[in-house]
Amino acid sequence: MDRTVAPNAVAAVSEARQWDRLMKLAQLGAITGADGSPGVNRQALTPLDRTARRLVVGWAEAIGLTASVDMLGNLFLRHEGTEPGAAPVLSGSHMDSQPAGGRFDGIWGVIAALEAVQALREAGIATKRPIEVVAWTNEEGSRFAPGCMGSMAFAGHSAPDTWDAVTDGEGMTFGAELRALLDSEADLPRRGLGVVDGPKPHAYVEAHIEQGPILEDEGIDIGVVTGIQGSRWFLVELTGESAHAGTSPVSTRRDAVQDMVRAINALNALMEDPTDVLRFTVARIEVAPNSSNSVAETVRFTIDFRHPDAAVLTARGDAIEATVKAAVKNCGVAVTERFHALPVAFAPEVTGAIERAAAAQGLSAERMPSGAFHDAQFMVPLCPSGMIFVPSRRGISHNPAEYSSPEQLAKGARVLAQVLAELANS
Amino acid sequence: MDRTVAPNAVAAVSEARQWDRLMKLAQLGAITGADGSPGVNRQALTPLDRTARRLVVGWAEAIGLTASVDMLGNLFLRHEGTEPGAAPVLSGSHMDSQPAGGRFDGIWGVIAALEAVQALREAGIATKRPIEVVAWTNEEGSRFAPGCMGSMAFAGHSAPDTWDAVTDGEGMTFGAELRALLDSEADLPRRGLGVVDGPKPHAYVEAHIEQGPILEDEGIDIGVVTGIQGSRWFLVELTGESAHAGTSPVSTRRDAVQDMVRAINALNALMEDPTDVLRFTVARIEVAPNSSNSVAETVRFTIDFRHPDAAVLTARGDAIEATVKAAVKNCGVAVTERFHALPVAFAPEVTGAIERAAAAQGLSAERMPSGAFHDAQFMVPLCPSGMIFVPSRRGISHNPAEYSSPEQLAKGARVLAQVLAELANS
Repeated sequence: MDRTVAPNAVAAVSEARQWDRLMKLAQLGAITGADGSPGVNRQALTPLDRTARRLVVGWAEAIGLTASVDMLGNLFLRHEGTEPGAAPVLSGSHMDSQPAGGRFDGIWGVIAALEAVQALREAGIATKRPIEVVAWTNEEGSRFAPGCMGSMAFAGHSAPDTWDAVTDGEGMTFGAELRALLDSEADLPRRGLGVVDGPKPHAYVEAHIEQGPILEDEGIDIGVVTGIQGSRWFLVELTGESAHAGTSPVSTRRDAVQDMVRAINALNALMEDPTDVLRFTVARIEVAPNSSNSVAETVRFTIDFRHPDAAVLTARGDAIEATVKAAVKNCGVAVTERFHALPVAFAPEVTGAIERAAAAQGLSAERMPSGAFHDAQFMVPLCPSGMIFVPSRRGISHNPAEYSSPEQLAKGARVLAQVLAELANS
Repeated sequence: MDRTVAPNAVAAVSEARQWDRLMKLAQLGAITGADGSPGVNRQALTPLDRTARRLVVGWAEAIGLTASVDMLGNLFLRHEGTEPGAAPVLSGSHMDSQPAGGRFDGIWGVIAALEAVQALREAGIATKRPIEVVAWTNEEGSRFAPGCMGSMAFAGHSAPDTWDAVTDGEGMTFGAELRALLDSEADLPRRGLGVVDGPKPHAYVEAHIEQGPILEDEGIDIGVVTGIQGSRWFLVELTGESAHAGTSPVSTRRDAVQDMVRAINALNALMEDPTDVLRFTVARIEVAPNSSNSVAETVRFTIDFRHPDAAVLTARGDAIEATVKAAVKNCGVAVTERFHALPVAFAPEVTGAIERAAAAQGLSAERMPSGAFHDAQFMVPLCPSGMIFVPSRRGISHNPAEYSSPEQLAKGARVLAQVLAELANS
């Protein structure tokens, strides 16, 4: 890398422009949290998601980037390199939000990459390699489970038609909604999926808010992410029988709510962890017919289980089905695993570049693992990968109260600009 | 009563016509149960409910009855008496269904009363007193809680505007949906609510399917209902904080799902009953944001608690709020009682009339209490009241598999015809 040009690019990163773009995007699906915070509900493949993508494509095309879309709806905004056939450096994240999400999770990684590339171009810095800003489809997995579908398909982790039949809460399928998105973007060039049609990426860097309290608590500017804990998602389906709440004796019922409570009690025991490292969450419950005076016929509930140690992830995760089946008394049970991502470690080339950039810019940096999963973990088998974190206020995320300041986000984008310049010239 | 005329009316009851009307109504909101049974989803104040009311009004007007509606949407179909100012005999039930309900619960009581009145008229039997077929608004309480709103307002048990702000799952208010119903029925005469504008009813008789297995198990034609157990409904609202399922340590969470599980465990202990008489049900749960990887911020769940003994109903019901509050660890809690109906005993005048009619018709009859609540229980303070049950297959109700045969239902309508003839001439 030509170390004399990076400072110009770093100086060209605009805190105001980046913030303004984030705030414009936050209008698409704006909601208000319980505490009055301005949040976002812009889930994957919704009309709002399409509108947001158009907005970003417009900004990218205005500065000379070329947009293209693959069959999973992953969106690429390409800055050409001086050696166009060279393996590209990819940088981005996702644009979809949780149903009651914040204004920064995911979307900042896309806007930061766009800001970094724009700064490089404005500073007149050519890179040997192309840089592609990427927005992966459906990282959150809240509308269509699991998350990270776009990056998993890109990386060849899962076949692209794996989730076609997955339905959202309204019964819409992922396949149909994806086709609707692609139809609406028929004017954008279509590219092959993943690395089939081209070289593997040279590197992948994802900027993201921390979603935890460590950087804020310690007053650190930049988190140098060393890896991501493993995640396993399960769906538990209990099938009992509906009955009249006034007439049916409790002893004869096949009550799916009561069996759900038995199952969660047993899972809580299985997942006990005095070290508080293990993450076990039941956060989505659907009851039918969901009428206060009709005994529940069916309950579907989700399990989100994470651990940084692959051995723990495997042992306790593999015990979930048997634990649920032993606990349930009166209902039929089906346990389906819907997502399985082992822990990953990021590449020293990338973590090193992030540390060098932070140091060159006089920013404090700290190595840390990620508790959340990210698209970056599926890039690990493909190319040297890594992530840049910036502080999250109180560590709150998946919540309208999620917040990182314009200044914190600008610092992250400046580090990213320098890292991209280094990687795209290496 | 002129005991010579009743047999003609009894003979005029048409099994085929009554069944045909029930099957026509079952097309409005037809659904299919898990076992393939044809059920009904026609909840209160929906467009389907309006259509069903129109159909019934049409049948009633075709035989010379006069329709009118009160401010709660209760629908009356009046057969005039030879002494028009005399206190009327009321008979009916409700037309709304559970979300995954059957074809007979409620609606049969309306159609049976219409059939009985039509049979009286076809047999040329005049009655001294008017007979009014009534369809009470929102008995089920599944869309808008609680149930029995129409009969409670009619009876003066609750003020008519009590539930205006109650919302359904989509956020529609009961008040707005009631106004929409009344607007759509502006062509029907409006009558005063309850007994404000006229004499108290002379008597009230409600025909209903048993919703329990006793009559079928014992091979009995007619249940002579002696009373109804008491019911109390509660809504529990837990308010925690959403957080990222991967990053937020379990120890720091305010997880509303986990507090719900704690509360239900404690309530199960409170409601334990080795005699299996007590009915305790949690059947409706709403989680927000209901996303598998966002810790639940809020949970709302319902409690349906019933007992035939007023002392038990009071003691354990009054302990619910403290039990929930003691069990919950990390969330804010609100417990609201939404329905409170003490056990009632029906009048000997009515139970006697039912027993006499069954005996006169050679039908077997048995005295029994009702586990379900019914609009009839709110008529008890107003006038001599009672109910006629017919067998329910396997006791199944609030389920598409609910079934009573054409013959069983015709027997019930014949008993009702004779009872109405006796009461309307007494």
